[in-house]
Amino acid sequence: MKVKINLDQLIEGVQDVMKAVSSRTTVQILTGIKMTVDHESMTLTGSDSDISIERLIPVEENDIVHIEIEREGSVVLPARYFSEIVRKLPNDTVEIEVGERFETTLRSGSSEFSLLGLDPEEYPLLPQIQENHVFEIQGDLFKNVIRQTVFAVSTSETRPILTGVNMKLEDGVLTCTATDSHRLAERQILVDTGSEDISFANVVIPGKSLNELSKIIDDSAENLQIVVTSNQVLFKAKNILFFSRLLDGNYPDTSKLIPSDSKTEIVLNTKDFLQAIDRASLLAREGRNNVVKFATIGNQQVEVSSNSPEIGKVFEHVMVDEMEGEELKISFNAKYMMEALKTMDSTEVRVLFTGAMRPFLVKPTGDQAIKQLILPVRTY
Amino acid sequence: MKVKINLDQLIEGVQDVMKAVSSRTTVQILTGIKMTVDHESMTLTGSDSDISIERLIPVEENDIVHIEIEREGSVVLPARYFSEIVRKLPNDTVEIEVGERFETTLRSGSSEFSLLGLDPEEYPLLPQIQENHVFEIQGDLFKNVIRQTVFAVSTSETRPILTGVNMKLEDGVLTCTATDSHRLAERQILVDTGSEDISFANVVIPGKSLNELSKIIDDSAENLQIVVTSNQVLFKAKNILFFSRLLDGNYPDTSKLIPSDSKTEIVLNTKDFLQAIDRASLLAREGRNNVVKFATIGNQQVEVSSNSPEIGKVFEHVMVDEMEGEELKISFNAKYMMEALKTMDSTEVRVLFTGAMRPFLVKPTGDQAIKQLILPVRTY
Repeated sequence: MKVKINLDQLIEGVQDVMKAVSSRTTVQILTGIKMTVDHESMTLTGSDSDISIERLIPVEENDIVHIEIEREGSVVLPARYFSEIVRKLPNDTVEIEVGERFETTLRSGSSEFSLLGLDPEEYPLLPQIQENHVFEIQGDLFKNVIRQTVFAVSTSETRPILTGVNMKLEDGVLTCTATDSHRLAERQILVDTGSEDISFANVVIPGKSLNELSKIIDDSAENLQIVVTSNQVLFKAKNILFFSRLLDGNYPDTSKLIPSDSKTEIVLNTKDFLQAIDRASLLAREGRNNVVKFATIGNQQVEVSSNSPEIGKVFEHVMVDEMEGEELKISFNAKYMMEALKTMDSTEVRVLFTGAMRPFLVKPTGDQAIKQLILPVRTY
Repeated sequence: MKVKINLDQLIEGVQDVMKAVSSRTTVQILTGIKMTVDHESMTLTGSDSDISIERLIPVEENDIVHIEIEREGSVVLPARYFSEIVRKLPNDTVEIEVGERFETTLRSGSSEFSLLGLDPEEYPLLPQIQENHVFEIQGDLFKNVIRQTVFAVSTSETRPILTGVNMKLEDGVLTCTATDSHRLAERQILVDTGSEDISFANVVIPGKSLNELSKIIDDSAENLQIVVTSNQVLFKAKNILFFSRLLDGNYPDTSKLIPSDSKTEIVLNTKDFLQAIDRASLLAREGRNNVVKFATIGNQQVEVSSNSPEIGKVFEHVMVDEMEGEELKISFNAKYMMEALKTMDSTEVRVLFTGAMRPFLVKPTGDQAIKQLILPVRTY
């Protein structure tokens, strides 16, 4: 293999596939990035066996030549070193030449690196995906879906299935759900399944995979193709294939957790409420598990408070725009509430309580697509 | 005490004194910030007993009123909580009222905090400074002096005196020196001692103190007053007093370490050289202690190289602008060289060698005020 490639293109590509490379892998070949050049493109691959990313750099794009190919071929290069080197090379191009026993020379300006490469034949094959369930979704929209759900996955391995986001597709509606059993995030979205009427359930994508995916896909309205199989999901964007394994097991039925009625309903300004909770939690962090108290106090106001015997106490008053139903005193984890509120893009939120000991719902006003459910804490 | 104060002013002041507050102190009162209000200002104090910072907020400045005083007084507030709270308060002012047993109420907008304060009488007094050695220096200039020396102090406590920067004042020239015994940084600067002819030596300021000082003083040409006593140094800037204890012991005589002649002299572009070393060190980090090889190779070039048997090798060629004297091969720690080069503001640097096993000198061209000395490593 011998090519000359535009450095910016290479850096971008390497950065993308590095998202899948883990420094903690025990499989030596997976500490590398696989690079393959044929007559029309360079393909970079990174994998930690849970996530695999394939990134294409076309020889030419919009009449700009990215790669000059002298000899096609393939090699696996040490990922961490290679990615650091390319970011620091002095010129705007680099010549890459694979020699005997995969020893690879990188030449750029007055700089010459020689890296011990590995045999690309030893690199594992990417999952073979049969395209049985395919649908499309706008990239920026899907990034939002990830942002609004993935924070709620469990970080504990006691119930591994809860470390993922569950996807269900039914009647053209995609429902994404995450829960760590203390709170739950749900986002629904209409998707384009083409002429087919596809549906599936219990497709559980590891939270980590979605976080990495979110860093790679553009903030653009360009479509993301999603291919679901029994044990893998593949996201296809321009020049990128992102594979993730799915989690084994049955995701719990969460539909019954979400209350359908309410006894107290409050509408308040998202930002004011978020900031009040944020301040109240300042004194609740230590020894109090970040729990704050919330109470309706009449006069179109709610009070958020916290008391730490060694430090002091805090009272926050927030004006409400609407309040209906019973008086209420309830306690909850401030972090859960803040994370829930941060998923809301609306100026106002609606909070629906069904009593001090029952889970309550936070939703944007005038939008049923996002539901954030939080379990209260017993203190009052 | 009861006052209403502009929040931005308070946040800035608290941020400054927080630089002296340590979360690891065992003295409970020092986990607090002392706040004192008299008829003309609020004074904030923070200290970890090595560093003490006193910050003044005037009642009025440039016809703008910062503080409205209802009742003078004093209190010590829990530093970490107080600093986090003020940064998040909703209004642009806060009312601070000290009640019984130093319980302090902070009111801002719809937010009300009540913090358990401590008795200010228990707060240690600041060092009493007799102004025997006083001189002045431009703030931005002194920040540069710190930047160009403090990085070279020792981080090991085996010789505590080397964890500080030594200051010597003689004939109106201030010499600042730092060394960890592998490299040495020296910066000289002319200072204004007024009409007096003051001189001192062996004034060793802890590196940590200078790093914190550097964060506080403005990047302006405003003068910094420096007061030196036998065991304390005091830096006075506008509205700020910064005290640091000095290190006990005798700083080693470093003047004989700096070679006065040279056998090989090379002038090269600072940035090109820095980047070449940076790249060469990429393969030198693990198992090789970051050591790179440097050699004159004729043709107005030098070569920087490194070889890591498991990863690969790198050769960097750098054009030199001047080269005089003997051919040379030498090895050194890339980190030391990079840190030395980063202190140089000149486009070109001069490197003076006196043989492969002798310390060598890096200087800006046409400026004798900065000297960076590096000990080579035996490998060739």
